This record gives sequence, structure tokens and C-alpha cells, in this order.
Amino acid sequence: MEMHKVIQHVETLRWCGGPDGYLELVDQTLLPTEFRYLTCRDLETLCEAIRQLRVRGAPAIGIAAAYGVVLGLQQATGPLHPPLVSQKNSVEKSVQPAKAAFGPRLEEVIGALASTRPTAVNLFWALERMRRRALALQDQPIPVILESLLQEAKAIHEEDRQMCRAIGRHGQELLSDGQSVLTHCNAGGLATADYGTALAVIYAAVEAGKRIHVYVDETRPLWQGARLTAWELQQRSIPATVLCDNAAASLLQQGRVQAVITGADRIAANGDVANKIGTYGLAVLAAAHNIPFYVAAPSSTFDLAIADGSQIPIEHRPGREVTHPLGRPIAPEGVEVYNPAFDVTTARLVTAIICERGVIRPVCRAEIAACLGES
Amino acid sequence: MEMHKVIQHVETLRWCGGPDGYLELVDQTLLPTEFRYLTCRDLETLCEAIRQLRVRGAPAIGIAAAYGVVLGLQQATGPLHPPLVSQKNSVEKSVQPAKAAFGPRLEEVIGALASTRPTAVNLFWALERMRRRALALQDQPIPVILESLLQEAKAIHEEDRQMCRAIGRHGQELLSDGQSVLTHCNAGGLATADYGTALAVIYAAVEAGKRIHVYVDETRPLWQGARLTAWELQQRSIPATVLCDNAAASLLQQGRVQAVITGADRIAANGDVANKIGTYGLAVLAAAHNIPFYVAAPSSTFDLAIADGSQIPIEHRPGREVTHPLGRPIAPEGVEVYNPAFDVTTARLVTAIICERGVIRPVCRAEIAACLGES
Repeated sequence: MEMHKVIQHVETLRWCGGPDGYLELVDQTLLPTEFRYLTCRDLETLCEAIRQLRVRGAPAIGIAAAYGVVLGLQQATGPLHPPLVSQKNSVEKSVQPAKAAFGPRLEEVIGALASTRPTAVNLFWALERMRRRALALQDQPIPVILESLLQEAKAIHEEDRQMCRAIGRHGQELLSDGQSVLTHCNAGGLATADYGTALAVIYAAVEAGKRIHVYVDETRPLWQGARLTAWELQQRSIPATVLCDNAAASLLQQGRVQAVITGADRIAANGDVANKIGTYGLAVLAAAHNIPFYVAAPSSTFDLAIADGSQIPIEHRPGREVTHPLGRPIAPEGVEVYNPAFDVTTARLVTAIICERGVIRPVCRAEIAACLGES
Repeated sequence: MEMHKVIQHVETLRWCGGPDGYLELVDQTLLPTEFRYLTCRDLETLCEAIRQLRVRGAPAIGIAAAYGVVLGLQQATGPLHPPLVSQKNSVEKSVQPAKAAFGPRLEEVIGALASTRPTAVNLFWALERMRRRALALQDQPIPVILESLLQEAKAIHEEDRQMCRAIGRHGQELLSDGQSVLTHCNAGGLATADYGTALAVIYAAVEAGKRIHVYVDETRPLWQGARLTAWELQQRSIPATVLCDNAAASLLQQGRVQAVITGADRIAANGDVANKIGTYGLAVLAAAHNIPFYVAAPSSTFDLAIADGSQIPIEHRPGREVTHPLGRPIAPEGVEVYNPAFDVTTARLVTAIICERGVIRPVCRAEIAACLGES
């Protein structure tokens, strides 16, 4: 048995300073050739970063959006110095003119963040949580609200860390020593605050001393598998093999994979799962080869307000992502392109959902309600 | 109903001159941004062109290899001038020293061509046909043999043209006006001497006045779908939509495709089909969605010497094709890659095989034997 590995952690997002601080995030469009933080000092920079997938992954988008509310409100409230809560009188005087604009600005900021990407529900979940916190404090001075919103964003961030570890703990029991696992896109440390959802299961299994080989779908059109997942696995010295998405079926046919694990961007009340385009095809293939298909996602990914996957809005992205990889044309000028960023996997194809609260199996409305309701 | 379209034809390969001539072929690695012929005046240039997929597609590789035998023997036999058959005495004198080397050189040339790519059986079929022709003529002077071998290569070329039309005729009856068809890789004019195998079915349906929309898998890692098939369809004004391979399942799930059609590189006696990586996955998906999955291929693609697909040699290509699209890295340095060029679709997933001799359905040993034996 291999020695237990100590898993190192990359900080995907980090807030620097107090309520007048800024957000740094790993610019994931530059990986794997360059590891660099992007500094977001205003709402516009962050919204662009989310739209361009500089930060991506449902949980990470939620965290980024939470901090984004703080960033956006900084602009509304003018200079926050001299700070703040300790000098209440002077502060109240200086921000008084801004207070009337606060409510509308809050909605404007939330609206801007909410319009960046439509599918991952964690974004809306985090924004709603920030809104509730702001409204509960509406009688307070703005600096108090901002300080409190920053604490809320940090709480979302910290809970996400704990969520990753809990998903890893629950999920790793589903894997055995010596197994090979296929994953799609990146549901790892770069998609979360800690070490991921789907990849957390693998990392926790490795920490528990199991030898796991990971097959990594490259994940066209933006190669999150080849660029991000393979990089993460290499950083942690976990054996990994990259393949074109269309080669996955051949691996499964040869019996070289014992489980498929992906993350999720939104899960309906009945267990239908929206995730990166290609996930549904893998689920069909896994079922056809009698291989378990697992989804790992925090409870914030569930959208109990919608009955099934048909109601999940699917983002369609520019055709140029497909026709111009790395900026160079690989298709004739003007050709029509079908480029949905996500697809929906029907619940009956999902063997189990690994959540921070436990493993949901079988995947059905009742089991989901039971798991999410019991906290 | 749309007006019947006149389908224009691109000459994928063309022989220029007599037995001392040369082969020109469309350099398909440059498409769709550049349309240029590569001139092959020697065996090495042609072998490199086949290995690098400058010419590709099972039927086209067979034709190229047939001409390659002529090219390779030119070098063995020295100058062919003054020509040839009409001045028999002088010719016999001039080539006499070369004659002893002819047999070994023939085997050397065939060996070089046979070692370029392992999976498409049309290559070996064409080489075997050329060998038989050469051996039947072994008592003749070399110029006579060469002239005769050129005629044999031209016959293979011409038969391939007729094959495409016959496959189109038989196959188009399987498509209805208004349908959408999904195809993978390129089994079109660029893969054959005329207008393809899988695409011939579509072209013939359009010629018959049917409106067909074609969904085109981009076909990683070398994008033959996006680069070649989309280009061909655009040349012929047939509506086409390019998608990432991993988005095909989502299209099928939505009921937007009524048939899947691909070509084949080798078909075993039981009907198992080797074709471009990704084909097997599509066949599983088609079956799961109750959509017919058709394979279009000439009789030269059948390898009745092997019982089933497990015996078909599968070419594995350099990992760099996956990790360095357009020469730039999209995966971490040194990562392991799984890059098979082909997979094997089990016969039970194939609704019908469309051959120049007719439609084989159901796909099984007896029906295949009956179809291939009856000519």
C-alpha cells in the first residue's frame, strides 16, 4: 500500500483586507501554463472574470459572487475611511447621503452578478443569502452592513471548505484500492474553496491510502479537464491519464474504469443533474456498461424549487469557443455551432449523489428531501 | 420542396501522367483555411502524407496506396525513358539489370505502405490487389508491369467513384425529407474518390430533393468533422451545425437527430465495426435513444478473415495530438495520454451497413456473407 499523501491546497479565491479590501482569484484561463492571481477591485472586473470562466465551478462561483456583493457595495458607499464601526458618529455622518442609494445599489449589484451565468444555482443561492443578510441589517449604518456582509461571504467560503472535506469523507468509501475513476471537467480545488467535490472523493480516497488512477476527459470546448483537473492531479502526484471526450466510451468498453464521478451545477428536486456538457453522455455510457455513476455536490447545488431537470436554464456559449480553439479557426468561416455549456442527466442514471450531509441513494425526490431536510 | 442540388466534386487524389507520372492529393491537414494539393513524386512523401493524415479516410488511403506502389516501383526501375512497350527490345535491354531487384522492391514498397497505418483494411486490400496484379505479370518487362499496375490503381480509383454513388443510392432511401442526421469524423468526398460513404448517403438524399440538416461532431483530436465535413457540406450548401463530440448526447436526448451515420475503417465478419474514436459511444447513445445507427462502407472495408472486432488492430497515436492542439499546450507537461485513433462498435448496435452492393440488415455474419458473396 502506498504511503498516505499530504494533499496540498491551492487557494482558488482569497479576500485581502477588510470591508474595503479586494478579491484575488486564480485566473483559470491561464492554466496550466501560467499560475497567476487576478485582482478584482470592482464589480465589473469580477463579473467579467465569471463570464470568461477565469473563475468557474459552481461552488467557486457562489463564493466569488458573495464577495462580489461586498465589492459592488464599496463603490456605492464612497470612501470607507476613516473606518468604521468604532467611530460610529463620524461614519454615520459621512455615509448618510449614500444610505438612500444603498437598497437600489444592492439590487443592482446582485442583478449584475446574477446575470453572469445562468445554470449553476450556487450563484443564486449565495446571492440570496447575501441579500437576506443585508436586508436583516438595513437599519444599521452602511459600514456595519458591509462588515457584516464580508463576514457572511467569509462564512460561505469557510463552509465550502468544510463541505469539500465532508464530501471527500462520505464519498471515498465508495472507492476501493486499485480502482480507476473517470471524471469530466473540473470539480476539484479550482472549482471550490478547498479540494473539490468530485475530486475531493478521489483526494480523500488517496489520503485514506487507496491507490486510485484518474482518467480525465479533456472537456471541450474549454478543456477544463486537460487544463485544470490534470494539473491539480499532477500537483498532488496522483496518476492521471488525459483523453479526448469521445474516447471515454472505449475505456469503459474495455473495463478499464470502475466508477465515473462528476460535479454538478444544479440538481432538481427529483435528482436530475445539470452539469458540464458531456456529463449526460457519460451517464448513459456508465449505465450501458454497469459502472456506477456518482455526482458529488454540496447541498447549495440543489434547487428544490424546480421539479425536474427540464426547468433548468441551460447556458449556450459563443460558437467561437468551438470553432476557434486557442484563437485559430478549425471550422469553415460562418458555420453554425451548437455550444451548450451544460446538459441534464436524468436521475435514474445517477447511482448516488455525494453531498456534505451524506450519500443520497437511490437518487429520488424522497431521499433528497430526507437528506436536505435533516440538518 | 427544395430544388434538386447539383453536387460539385473535389478531386481528393489525382494521378498526373503515365507510369512515370506522380500523384497529387489535397493536403487535408491545411483545410478548411487552405485548399492545396501536395505533389507526391516518391514513396517517402506519400508514406509521410498517409501517416500525417494529409490523405485519410479508409477508401482514399486504399487508392493512395495503390498509386504508391507505382511510385515506389518507379524508383526501383530507373529511368523509364525512352518509353516503353512499343520499343520492346531496347526497353528489355535497359531494364534487365533492374529486373532481379523488382520482386524484392515490390515487397519493400508494399511493406512501407502497409506500415503507415494499421487499422483501415482498405489499405491492405488495395496493396494485396496490386501485388496479385504484379505477380501475374512477373514474366513481362518492367515497363509493361508498371503500365499495368497504373491501370490497376486507376481501376481501384474508378471503382471507388462508382462505389460512392451506389452507397448514396442505396443509403438515401433510409433518410426522409426534413430529417436531421448526426455524423462523426469525415466519411465524405475527402475520404474517397467521389462523394464519400456516410456523406454520400446525405448527398444522394439531397440530390433526391430531400431537405437534410447535418449535425457534425468536431471529432477530436484532429477535428476532421469540423475541418473537413463541415467544409464539404458548406461547399455543397447543405445546412450543417458543428458541435463538440461531448454535446452529441444532449442533441439525441432532445430528439433533434433522426439518424446517426458514420463510415468504417474495418468491418469484421460478424459485423463489428472499427471506425474513428468516438463512434462506439455514438452507437451506444443512438441505441439508448432508439435512433438508427448506420454505417456506410464499401465491400473493401470488410475483413472476412477476422471473426470479430476484438482482432482488429487499433492504432494509438501520439499523445501530443491531444495535449498540443495547433501546437500549443492545453495540458500539464508530461501528463499521460490515452489516444486511440479508433474504437470498435459491436455489431448489435449497428442498425444497418450500407454497402455499394446493398443494405445489410440485420448486421450479422450470415447477411454479410450473403451480400458480399453474391457479386
